[in-house]
Parts: sequence; C-alpha cells; structure tokens
Amino acid sequence: MPKVEHQDATVLSDDELRTLDAHWRAANYLAAGQIYLMANPLLTEPLKPEHIKPRLLGHWGTSPGLNLVYTHLNRVIKARGLDALCVWGPGHGGPSVLANSWLEGSYSETYPDVSRDAAGMEWLFRQFSFPGGVPSHVAPETPGSIHEGGELGYSLAHAYGAAFDNPDLLVACVIGDGEAETGPLAASWHSNKFLDPVHDGAVLPILHLNGYKIANPTVLSPLPEAELGALLRGYGHDPIHVSGDDPIQVHRAMAQALDDALDRIAMMQRTAREDGATQRVHWPMIVLRTPKGWTGPAEVDGEPVEGTCRAHQVPLAGVRENPEHLRQLEKWLRSYRPEELFHPEGRPVADILACVPDGSRRLGATAHANGGLLVRDLPIRSLDTFAVPVEKPGTTLHEPTRVLGDLLEQVMNDTRISRDFRVVGPDETASNRLQAVFGASGKAWQADTLPVDEHLDRHSRVMEILSEHLCQGWLEGYLLTGRHGLFSCYEAFVHIVDSMVNQHIKWLKTSRELPWRAPIASLNYLLTSHVWRQDHNGFSHQDPGFVDHVLNKSPEVVRVYLPPDANTLLSVADHALRSRDYVNVIVAGKQPCFDWLSMDAARAHCARGVGIWDWAGSENGGEPDVVLACAGDVPTQEVLAAAQLLRRHLPDLAVRVVNVVDMTRLMQREEHPHGMSDFEYDGLFTKDKPVIFAYHGYPWLIHRLAYRRTGHKNLHVRGYKESGTTTTPFDMVVRNDLDRYRLVMDVIDRVPGLAVRAAAVRQQMADARTRHHAWIREHGTDLPEVADWTWNA
Amino acid sequence: MPKVEHQDATVLSDDELRTLDAHWRAANYLAAGQIYLMANPLLTEPLKPEHIKPRLLGHWGTSPGLNLVYTHLNRVIKARGLDALCVWGPGHGGPSVLANSWLEGSYSETYPDVSRDAAGMEWLFRQFSFPGGVPSHVAPETPGSIHEGGELGYSLAHAYGAAFDNPDLLVACVIGDGEAETGPLAASWHSNKFLDPVHDGAVLPILHLNGYKIANPTVLSPLPEAELGALLRGYGHDPIHVSGDDPIQVHRAMAQALDDALDRIAMMQRTAREDGATQRVHWPMIVLRTPKGWTGPAEVDGEPVEGTCRAHQVPLAGVRENPEHLRQLEKWLRSYRPEELFHPEGRPVADILACVPDGSRRLGATAHANGGLLVRDLPIRSLDTFAVPVEKPGTTLHEPTRVLGDLLEQVMNDTRISRDFRVVGPDETASNRLQAVFGASGKAWQADTLPVDEHLDRHSRVMEILSEHLCQGWLEGYLLTGRHGLFSCYEAFVHIVDSMVNQHIKWLKTSRELPWRAPIASLNYLLTSHVWRQDHNGFSHQDPGFVDHVLNKSPEVVRVYLPPDANTLLSVADHALRSRDYVNVIVAGKQPCFDWLSMDAARAHCARGVGIWDWAGSENGGEPDVVLACAGDVPTQEVLAAAQLLRRHLPDLAVRVVNVVDMTRLMQREEHPHGMSDFEYDGLFTKDKPVIFAYHGYPWLIHRLAYRRTGHKNLHVRGYKESGTTTTPFDMVVRNDLDRYRLVMDVIDRVPGLAVRAAAVRQQMADARTRHHAWIREHGTDLPEVADWTWNA
Repeated sequence: MPKVEHQDATVLSDDELRTLDAHWRAANYLAAGQIYLMANPLLTEPLKPEHIKPRLLGHWGTSPGLNLVYTHLNRVIKARGLDALCVWGPGHGGPSVLANSWLEGSYSETYPDVSRDAAGMEWLFRQFSFPGGVPSHVAPETPGSIHEGGELGYSLAHAYGAAFDNPDLLVACVIGDGEAETGPLAASWHSNKFLDPVHDGAVLPILHLNGYKIANPTVLSPLPEAELGALLRGYGHDPIHVSGDDPIQVHRAMAQALDDALDRIAMMQRTAREDGATQRVHWPMIVLRTPKGWTGPAEVDGEPVEGTCRAHQVPLAGVRENPEHLRQLEKWLRSYRPEELFHPEGRPVADILACVPDGSRRLGATAHANGGLLVRDLPIRSLDTFAVPVEKPGTTLHEPTRVLGDLLEQVMNDTRISRDFRVVGPDETASNRLQAVFGASGKAWQADTLPVDEHLDRHSRVMEILSEHLCQGWLEGYLLTGRHGLFSCYEAFVHIVDSMVNQHIKWLKTSRELPWRAPIASLNYLLTSHVWRQDHNGFSHQDPGFVDHVLNKSPEVVRVYLPPDANTLLSVADHALRSRDYVNVIVAGKQPCFDWLSMDAARAHCARGVGIWDWAGSENGGEPDVVLACAGDVPTQEVLAAAQLLRRHLPDLAVRVVNVVDMTRLMQREEHPHGMSDFEYDGLFTKDKPVIFAYHGYPWLIHRLAYRRTGHKNLHVRGYKESGTTTTPFDMVVRNDLDRYRLVMDVIDRVPGLAVRAAAVRQQMADARTRHHAWIREHGTDLPEVADWTWNA
Repeated sequence: MPKVEHQDATVLSDDELRTLDAHWRAANYLAAGQIYLMANPLLTEPLKPEHIKPRLLGHWGTSPGLNLVYTHLNRVIKARGLDALCVWGPGHGGPSVLANSWLEGSYSETYPDVSRDAAGMEWLFRQFSFPGGVPSHVAPETPGSIHEGGELGYSLAHAYGAAFDNPDLLVACVIGDGEAETGPLAASWHSNKFLDPVHDGAVLPILHLNGYKIANPTVLSPLPEAELGALLRGYGHDPIHVSGDDPIQVHRAMAQALDDALDRIAMMQRTAREDGATQRVHWPMIVLRTPKGWTGPAEVDGEPVEGTCRAHQVPLAGVRENPEHLRQLEKWLRSYRPEELFHPEGRPVADILACVPDGSRRLGATAHANGGLLVRDLPIRSLDTFAVPVEKPGTTLHEPTRVLGDLLEQVMNDTRISRDFRVVGPDETASNRLQAVFGASGKAWQADTLPVDEHLDRHSRVMEILSEHLCQGWLEGYLLTGRHGLFSCYEAFVHIVDSMVNQHIKWLKTSRELPWRAPIASLNYLLTSHVWRQDHNGFSHQDPGFVDHVLNKSPEVVRVYLPPDANTLLSVADHALRSRDYVNVIVAGKQPCFDWLSMDAARAHCARGVGIWDWAGSENGGEPDVVLACAGDVPTQEVLAAAQLLRRHLPDLAVRVVNVVDMTRLMQREEHPHGMSDFEYDGLFTKDKPVIFAYHGYPWLIHRLAYRRTGHKNLHVRGYKESGTTTTPFDMVVRNDLDRYRLVMDVIDRVPGLAVRAAAVRQQMADARTRHHAWIREHGTDLPEVADWTWNA
C-alpha cells in the first residue's frame, strides 16, 4: 500500500465556515419546509394551521446529515474542480437532496416551474410527497440521482458501477447505518477489490452513523470505535472519523476529512497511473457520526426526539391541530434564520452559493447521473461473422452460449478504447460457456495472483464475484451512467435479484416519463444453465420463474426472449445490446443444441418473434389438424421430435409447428407493445384447433398471456411443474410431461377422432415412456433412441 | 469481554492422531468413491472402465476440508459429551457429509438399504448423483442436515436460527469462501449481536478458505492474515487460524483450535449464565485454510489440479475412456489405503470409529436436524379472547395487524418457559402495528442501550434487523430445529427473499416425501404495509407479486390468505400458526379497516376460504345478474362500496358479493389440495353471469388460477397494474381502475341490457372520478364522500 503524505490540517477561514454553515442551514430549512409547509414558505408571517400540509409525510431524521455531506461535497468539488457524482443511500432523505438541488439551481433548470424564488420555494414544498408531486425518496425525478432510495441495500454497488471505467470521476456514496445491515450492502464493501485505480474512478464511501433505524438502534452504531475500525479496515478501507453535534466543530472536521480523503485518493491514483504501482490500495472512507434529526426538535410532548429514532420521519406530527406543535415547528424553522439565508423574494443570498460549484459540476447537474446523455452505440459487427452455418435444420449441434461468446469477444475487443462495455456474472462466465470473451478481456482482479490463476487482470472488464446482488448492482450503476453490459446468470439464482430488478424496472418506467432523462442502455440478462439441464445440481437449481416475475412489471420496459438455437440467440442478443431503456431477459441453453435456423432465417424469425416452421410441420395448404407450439430450446427439440413421430406414425395428420421467441408476442396488443392482434394470433394458432404448447417454464404463464384469445379453450400447455431432481435431460422432460412421447399422446387425446384411430400409436408412446423408466434405473443414462435422436424430416 | 483462560495446548496421542487420520482418509475415500464408482467399491480388483459411472458428477474440491471438520467435530462431541449440530455451508460437499454419515452408521439407520457393508457402500456410491438417487448437495435427504447447499449464502443465518433458544446446543457452521462473498452471508456475521449467551446456544463459524470458487480465486482467500483478522474481529469474532497441507500438522492444529474455541465458549456461557455478566462477548471462530481438492490428484494432463479451481468438481473427467485417467484415479483411491480402513466385507474397522460419538450425539442422528421430532403445539388461546365485536358489518374500524398483535402477545407470553416462538421482521414490528407483542417480549439486543431505547432486551424473542435475508434465514433455522415463528414484512420487500423461500419450499416438498422427516412448523409470512397503502413511500414500495411467486411452487406446500378484516386475520393466523410443513402467506392491512365479520362468521368464512356475503349483495333467491368478487382488504371495501352504490342506483339489479380469503380455492381440485370442484365454483360464481373481480394484486393471477372454469370468459379482473406513486389511498385505487365507481361502470358495461338503461348512472360514476381528480389536485386528500364513507346496507 502506498504511503500517504498527510497534508496540513485544513483550516477553514471564518468566511468559509460561515458560508458552509449558511448553506447547511438553508438546506435544513428547505428540507423541513418540504415536510410541513404548503404556504408561507419564507415565514414572512406567523405560522398558521392553514400553512401546514394536510398529510405530513417524509423523513427528517437523515436529512441534516445528508445536507452536511452535500454542502461539503460542494466545497471540495468547487475548490478542486472535481467531476463528481453522489449516490444517496439513505434515499428517504429526499427532502435533503431536493433542497440542495434547488439551492444550487439545478432543480429549477430541470423543472422550470419550480423557480429559485418564493413562488418556486412554495411549489418545492407543496409538491413534496403530495399527490401528483414528487416522491419522498431520492428517485428518478431527483436531479443528479442514479439511485432510488426506497429499497435499501444497493447504494454502494451502484457507486462502484458508476466509477468503473470513469477514471476522472469521484463517486461519493452516503451509506446509512440502517442500510448497512442489509446483505447486499454488507457484500458491497468488497467491491474495492475490483476497482482498478488506473481505468476506474474513485469511490468514497461515507458511512453515516446516526444511530437509529425506524424503531431501533442500528447494529453498527453502538460498536466501539476500535471494533468498527477493524471491520472497515477488514473491508479494505482506511476510515477517517468525523463525529459531533456541534455544527462548527463538525464543519471543521468534515472539511478536514474530505481534504484528507481526496488527497489520498489523488495520490493513490497518481501512484498507479504514473508510477505503475500494482499493489492493491486501501482506499479512504469517512465515518460520519451525527445525531439523527440533528437541529430538529430536541423534545416533543416530553419525549426526547433529536438523536433518537423518533426523529426518523415527522418529528412533530400534530402541527395542524396542536398549537404547541405549531409553535415548536415555527421555532424550529426560525432557528435556521431564513431571513439571513434568502432574499425577501426567495432567492438564496449570494453567501450561501459561495461554495456551490458551477454548471455541470453541480451534483444535481452532472451528466453522469443522466447516462443517456453520454451513451454511445455499441460497435457490434454483422452477425454473419458469428453465425453457425445451417444448410439443413437439425443436422449440426452447437452450444448457443458459446457461439454468443464470440460476439461478446468482438464487442469487448472493439470497446478497448471506449471502455463502455462490461460482462458480469457470479463466477460463471466460463461455466456458462462464454469464455471466448477472455480472448478480449480478462477478469477484473486487484489482488495478487498465483501462477495457476487464469484470466485475472487488473485492468479488465469481465467481472465475476459470487454475489448476484453485486453483479446486478454494479451493472445498474454502470448502465445508469451511460455504458453497456450483460449479466449472465444461472437461471434459478437470478431470483436472488428479483427485488433489485423490480426497482430498476420502476426506475426505467418513471424515467421514460421524464423528458429530461435520456434513454440508457438496456439491462440485459442471459439466463442459462437452465431448469432442464441441471443434470448434477438437481432440484435446488431448477426454477424458471424469473420470466413470470418480470412479466408482472411495466410492459413498456420488459422484454423476454427464448431463442431456440445458436443463431436465434445471436439475433436476440444483438437486438438487446442495441436497445435502450428495457430490461431484456434472454433464456438460452449452454448445452449442445441442434441448429434449426440459418442466420437469415433466424433474423427473420426473431424479427417476427413468433412464426410457423413450415419445414417442421406436415401441413398441406389448409388449416392444420393440430398446432404444436414451443418456446425454449428443450421444448423446441421435444416438439420437433414429436412432429417427427407424428409424421412417421400418423402421416395423414396435418401438424403445424409454431415457435415462439418473444414471449410478449402472445399478449394482447393493448397489453404490451409487442402483443399480437387477434387476427394475427388466430392466423398462427387457429381459432378452433387443439394447440399443444411445450413451454420452457411454468405452464400457466402461457394461459395468463393467452387467456383472451379466441381459441384459448383448446390450448393445452406443458411445462415445468416443480418435478425435479438430479437426473438426465430426458428424464427431466418425462417427469414434467414435456417429452416427445407425451406430446404425441396429447395430440392423439385432443384431435377429434384420433383417440380410436391412433390407439395403437398412443400405446407405443406410453410404452416408450415405460422403457425410459426401466432403462434409466438400470443405466443412469437416456434411452439410446433419445440420446442419438436427430431431426430427419 | 470476559478474559479467556487458554487451556494448555491440546496434545493428541499418537493413537488419537492415527484414529483421526484414518477416519479422515476413510471419509475422503468414500467421497471420491461416490463421484466415480458404481462397482468394485473396495477396490478388491484392479479398477476397470466398467466400474466407473457413465456420468461423472459431483464436487470433490470442498470434500476433504469438510471431512476434516466432521472428523474433528466427532472427537470433541465425544470427548465433551456435546449436543451438536453442523450446518454445512459448502453444500456441494454432499459426498463428504454422506460419507461421514455412512461411517458413523446414521446413514444406514435412516436408509437401511444402504447398509454399513460392501453392498451398502456400493449402493452409497451408485446412488450419488444418479437418476433416482440422491442429490450431489447436502439436502433434505441428508441425515443431520437442516441446510440445502445448492444456493449459497444462508448457512450462517440458519446456524443462528438453530442456536436461538437452544442453550445446550453447539451449532458449528462451515462457511465456504465462495459463499462468504454473497450478501446474505456477509450480513449474517453480525448475527452474533443478537445471540443471548444465557438462553441461546453457541454458534461456531468455521470459515473454510480453500482459495477457489468454480473458476476464480475467492475474495477473502488472498487477503493478508492481518486484514482478514481485522474483518473477522470487526464482525465481532475472535478468530483462531488453522492452516496447512500436511495432514498430521493440520490434525494437531485443528484439534487444538476446536478445544480452544469450545473452552472459550463454555467459559463465556458460564460467565453469562452463572455470574450474570452482561457485556457483549466476542465469540471464537475458526479460519481453516487447506488446499482445494486436498489429497486429490496434484496434476492432470499436465495442469495443476490440487489447490486450484480445477479441483472444484470432478478432477479426472475422462476416466472411462482415458486409461491414464483411470490409472490416476486408482492410484488416488488407493492412496487412502482402503484395505486398512474397511474390513473385507466393507464394515469400517473399529479404529476409525473410535472418535465417533454414540447414538443421537452423532451429527447425522441429532433430533435437532429433524425438528419435527421436537416440535410442540403452540399454546394459542381461543380467538374469542382477541376478537373485535361486530354487531353489524362495516360499522366499526380496527387495524387488523394491531388486533393480531394481541394474539402474538399471548403466544409470546405463554411460551415464556418453552421459548419456542419468535417474531422476526426488518425493523418493522411496530411499524406493522404488532407492538402489543412487546408486552410479552422485548427485542433481542446484546449491545449496550441508552435511556431513550425502548423494548431492547438481552433475553428477548422479537428479532429486528434491517435485513429480510437474516429474518428469513434465522426463522428457517429456528423452524427446521423444531420451533415456531412469524415473519412480518413490508409486502413489496419480501421479494428480497424470493430465492430463499424457493429453497425452503423445495426443502419442505422433498421432506414431505421422506418418511423419516417429521413435519415441522410452517413458515408464516405476514405481509403488510401493502401496495394500496404506501401513502408516503410511493412506487418503490408497491409490489404485490410475492403471491404470484409462491403460487408457482409446489401446491402441497404453499398457502395464500387475504383476510379482509381483523377477525378473519385472526382466524387465518391461528390456522397458520397451528399448521405444519407449509409456507403460509398472509396479506393483511395495518391501516384502519372496517370490521365485516364477527369472530364466528370469520371462522366459518375462513374455514370455507371463499363465500357469498349475503348481507352485502342484493340477491333475491334466484341467480344473480352479476357477481362482485373481492380478495384483499382494500378491494373488499371498494366492492362493498360499489355494491352499495348499485343498490342505491339500480335497486332491481341482483348483485352477489363473493369474498375470497384463500386464493388457492380458486384453483382446480387436481391442481391444489384446496382447489374447488367446478360444481362448487359454478355455484358461487355462476356459469354464465358477469363476474367483476377486484383483486389485491396483479389481476392476471386470477385468470391464471381460474382459466379452466366454465364461466371464465365472463370473468373481468381489476387489480394493481403498476400504476403507483406517492398519493392517497383512494387515488391509488382510481389509478388502477379498482375504485368503486369504476367497478359500478364495469357492472353496467357487462350486464346485458344495462348499458342503455343505466347510462345516466354510468355518467354519474364517471363524474365522480373526474371530481376526485380535481379535488386531489387541489387538496391533496381524498373526496369527503370517500373518506367518510361507511357501509349502510
């Protein structure tokens, strides 16, 4: 670790101190005002009940601390000419970030109706937590934010995502001591082992210990300083402590701490960038310990409030009805001396703004927090470069994800200069057979390596850590600041980030409604090692429900693709990587899979999202007798095998094969932008013929998507129904009644008249299933007729 | 922290050392054998390809380390007469735990077919990762396990859950360095701040650093010992380091470390229990650093394997085809000298068993890992004690969760002696209005408290930490060891544990199929602070999709209840708390809600799960003209308000009101044990009348449950469709078209003939919605006619 030359103690001049304190008081005043006031914003007259909002909502507790951080970040950004972004972990501190943005002017530039004067201040107050107004959390609506603070745990991962490949950026990150108890945050500390001092920016964690959550002390706050210090040093940081409840003393300490931290960061970056130092560094961080609800009411109704969890939300709850509360509120608000802070017409006085940086250096105006302004198109070459040749369907085999790996390698290679593309995954890039990408980039790793270690490199853009939370959080932060990426994950374990993807989808949905937020690159999931091929991991690794989860979410944002082979995977991945403001879920296999479509056919098929595979069916011009539909690689193989059996055993039967790549095509047009019209749906699936649908996941999803269709009562879906174990691929489909033999039986059972005519065929199919059970018990492998099956139309 | 008197260094006699090493070698032999062999288990003849399994599946890498831990735990359990349980975090080490269980005899007692002889050994080998056999992970099938190791991250939380209220139990917990990277595990370390040395048992974490995950070094492994030590001390532990690759030296160090740790634990417990010490203690833990795949092949095909990530799964992959691999395997297996370890007929020699404890002290035989053997019924008093009086529906208001709080207080009180009931929640017990429970128990807390802190107590059984992962993990561990509990959670954020509940449901499903596993208490969720009442938290706090998530899972296990008022909540909670082997999801409000049913009526209604509310409708004997169905507290209120409007405006219309409490009643009988027959369904919902269904969550769930019903095409569902923000309760239902006015419009639009006859009424409803929009923009509150609405039939 490089030695740090500590600079002389920062000495704030009286002027600076006065200015900083005035800015802080102004922010505190504006934060409290948002919680309480709907009129009389400058307290130009005595406070009356009618000035008070009818519903008092918001979080005061964390606001003064956030205001302190904002104020002091302003100082160092201005003094040092920094390019900075701040992630506000205690997102309930919405009033604080809004207050500071309004003070610095970025708020009024973003929302001209909320001008920087008395009328604007009144509107700032009124809109807060008001129906049709702005949320009480830091949110997409908040200028300068890349982080929604409603669900706690993700701030530090977002901060690292923002810092990766942004060498000139400082990303400050305020972490509440409540949030610090969550698992994702606890894991995020180790992100510093993946931060490259050469190509990445710096992250400055500011752990804000105000001691309390909603109703309890926090876990970290009562730790003796030595124990807390050991923890933070164990996380790889060098903590600087700032504590107190005397504003002047805290201003002094905070200024000193920030200067100290930034000096050390600058030196570490210089050492790595100019001197080529390669030792892992222990980045500084700040521990800020101030009272919860600092400067708010010390006591209410005889109970202590400041410094306790009673300051968490609205310290004075009965202001409209209770004259004593009203009096206390007025006293509290006037304690900030608003008359010194604002001109009579509401504009902040110049003094306050002395420490505020200019233009896009303001935290509320940085383009990094509006990543769509910075994002560039990815350089993706023609898919013909990567396509597998397919002269005839089903004669060759490829591992689809391995083929995709070649495309990822090219993109990784062609972003060597721009450094705006990363691939993340929980230790599974190679397991998911994307290892070609290592031809263009190693795996990010700052610790020492041993000769046996492969592909580890300090300056790389493939990221692996055994934490789906970190993969997701890093990637979100990276995308929100204007870059691109792909998250490859075992299908079952992507549920670990269900709640995170909820929040990201909500963020995108809201952002799309904000004209000032430019579209960002989509969040792309490659879900592989999927439910049907957990040959040795078994039941715990089998869950295809992420698709169900995301399809409950805003249809403007979510897209779900199940490419059935290598070339279709290339096509949907290409589309996903070029898209904006979506969450794209791609489910694809890593095991050898028949190639069904040439690249051209794959492009055309994926563009439609669903289509008839003429070559696979046995139609002869008219309406078919039955439709065999499929979505997903394994179901497609079983449907084609079933179609082949039908052709052999029931050559007169007109069978149509329909393959679905884009699941949302099945929805109504009014429910999803990709939804099919009934006319189109009926043309594919018929109005009245039996449809046997083999689906990759839980079968009822298809019913939920298609329940309004004319022919819905003829729709019979097979899929995964939680029958899993450690077993062979074919045994898995047999257990879940998705196998070729069962599908043929389904056809015979459902096509009118076949039951009798094809009774012998049905018995043959049932016999094949029995044969399978006997074989696998003895050999532990699949029937040779299944293992060696090929398409032979 | 109490002073520790270190005992003299443990000195193993040569005999002890030989015995321990023999046991370890035997376990290693058996672990490797499971991965490779299907015949010739004792190597009585030279190894041939036909002895090798056709598919080589399993994880060797972690096994030797786990075998070492099992062997040494055996020694101290026997020497000290301990009651112990071990949670095996590296669950991929299935071969190891199975090997040890077979050695100690608990495996053959549980599965008599797998006898402790050569035939049994062959079967032990063959069944492993074989279709129809046992999974490759530690799993429900594994004797002595409460932890499925397929999804990483939850071992330490499970261990603490097992230790709570088990004062005489030692819970060892092996944590892999891969797992240690996950968020839930990282957060779990702080569980020690919630462990009461008086009433709880001890948890002994054993962090096993073998350096590698699937494809990468781990984050913790390359840390310098000082940095790692700081981290672990920062977590509140006092680490003891054991490192090496020389077996004899490691045996000595491990024995010493375990004795040292157990001496300290005993002393800390004595100090707290006998001397009344109240200072928070720093529990010992062990850091075990041994090579990955230790004692396996050092090199394969010229590449290093032992001590690298290549040892993760199957070190020699081509044994059946590649004679050199076969030769290497034979050499490896013979290196354990099986002829010294097993009698010719396969029984382990007596020496090996010298360190193995007897009877239920064996780790594979402890009743704590089969909690159903220990669980007792909860003492729940008659619900009449807690019921709210309801003389007439809809005339009084109660907060349902507050009423439930009284029941929880009673149960908490009446388990003071048995200490087998806990309530967990992420800092929200009071926010969720369950605070009555504090009358019987404070909140578990070992750190110092300040005078302003409330309800914190060292010996308490309400648990709050801002981590849904820990709440879930602790509770799972507690239930699996035979106790009871309730998890109260904000509805939206329970998605944080989606993946954990998946695994618990899978565990229960598998356990139900194992006759030797006795049923355990159900995992009970109370989801409150729900989607409709996020007045100040807004969009990020709005997600009712957990119900959808669990309903994809095994129907034998999952139950979902939406009680519409206080007494129905009491009834379903009572049922849930008495039940076994389920995951019960209860969604209920904490805001004032009309009381609809008396306790008797609530009992009867909940027993049926769904029913017609005669008093609310306007039927007159025959079939109704329309059915208004509802599920959830807010939808029920809107449906009743709509029914009232219809009665006033269209008095001739025969309206039936159906309330659904148990969501699974809507399913087919063959799909869920609670499913209704079509006869029953048609009797409630009619075969052909319009059904307007107001549902608490995503509307398409109702279609997915009811799509096969006769009258499905007449079913029209309203629910939450991701239209959310910070706003009033009524505005939320208007935004999502679930409000009373819209429901009346839906009725008019769908009952044949009403469109014309009731056009004026329809317009009145549309006008009311317009009035709402104008009012809320101006006042920020709900229309007085809505805010003051009461039921008045």
